Amino acid sequence: MMSRARFITLEGLDGAGKTTHLTFIRNWLAAANVDTVFTREPGGTPLGEKLRELLLDVDTEATLDTETLLMFASRQELLSSVIRPALAMGRWVVSDRFTDATFAYQGGGRGVPAKRIAQLEEWVQQGLQPDLTILLDVPLQVSQQRLSQTRLPDRFEREREDFHQRVRDSYLARAAAYPQRFFVVDATGDIADIQQQLAGRLAMLKAQA
Amino acid sequence: MMSRARFITLEGLDGAGKTTHLTFIRNWLAAANVDTVFTREPGGTPLGEKLRELLLDVDTEATLDTETLLMFASRQELLSSVIRPALAMGRWVVSDRFTDATFAYQGGGRGVPAKRIAQLEEWVQQGLQPDLTILLDVPLQVSQQRLSQTRLPDRFEREREDFHQRVRDSYLARAAAYPQRFFVVDATGDIADIQQQLAGRLAMLKAQA
Repeated sequence: MMSRARFITLEGLDGAGKTTHLTFIRNWLAAANVDTVFTREPGGTPLGEKLRELLLDVDTEATLDTETLLMFASRQELLSSVIRPALAMGRWVVSDRFTDATFAYQGGGRGVPAKRIAQLEEWVQQGLQPDLTILLDVPLQVSQQRLSQTRLPDRFEREREDFHQRVRDSYLARAAAYPQRFFVVDATGDIADIQQQLAGRLAMLKAQA
Repeated sequence: MMSRARFITLEGLDGAGKTTHLTFIRNWLAAANVDTVFTREPGGTPLGEKLRELLLDVDTEATLDTETLLMFASRQELLSSVIRPALAMGRWVVSDRFTDATFAYQGGGRGVPAKRIAQLEEWVQQGLQPDLTILLDVPLQVSQQRLSQTRLPDRFEREREDFHQRVRDSYLARAAAYPQRFFVVDATGDIADIQQQLAGRLAMLKAQA
């Protein structure tokens, strides 16, 4: 009997530790013999990667509304050509960011009304939602200190502090609004401790499947 | 007193004579001292032109829904950065194709439900519609014969005959549904005769302004 496929998304500010914890999740699922497709947003398809380049380019001039539509165009392509086919075959899908990031960055961060984002969410997802959304939550100071040690900032990362504070607040508000699928992790803690929490939640999800 | 700005769109199959008649319209408006911005779709902005390249590239793999979202992303940018600012300054705007083309090509031609296109139309235009849409109508045989004499076909032009027939039918259905803003021209006729019709319609529009 094929167990039910699960769709997991990973969210959080840059510097929250997504890369580190994605590696852990990947290893845990492999060890548990769960056939999983890993992807990321924006991007994840040849067309999506071209749009990602456009969106992250510091020279790109696009209005907020256009940026939001491009995010959803990339998401539509990812859903149609990667996520839905994988789930239909019983494979799990883990995406590094998904629609909650649009509510957080374009919505909370930049001021696109949540209602307008929700209209595009419905157009593109037609009811599909993640089974589990892991939110790696860190205070602004922690994420920015971590980031400054690693690499040059892209267009989104160079935004002002209050922007990132609004992004974090929006993520937490989404988690409060959708408690059934959100799993909020305090990502300032000890890595081993965080990974124990993640392993516990993944084991639960697998047992339900 | 500043006269009211007008928004004109030009539609029709490739090979219907849009380029020729755009030149005539441009000259007519210049002679009438109407300050006009000319643009085109998809494209018309730096970002839009990059998306146009993506969309017209024969190697681009995009699902229908994604293609439709990209069309509207390009349109959003054109509206925000070109069309709305020009109209707000009292300038006229003439666009070589607009949303009716999405209903005709992605809708009638490729099968995206008109209802889904209308949702994005409302998201992007928020009620704004052209004051005049000139539809240059020709039977399929005429447009294809004209095209074959001029240039290599792009991705849309290489579609099968029944596709172009559905596009033409959709254009005519839109014209029937919105008779107030549509002006359908039989573009198989004598050029001087067509231009006389266009001049009459433009003069009427200017007199109303």
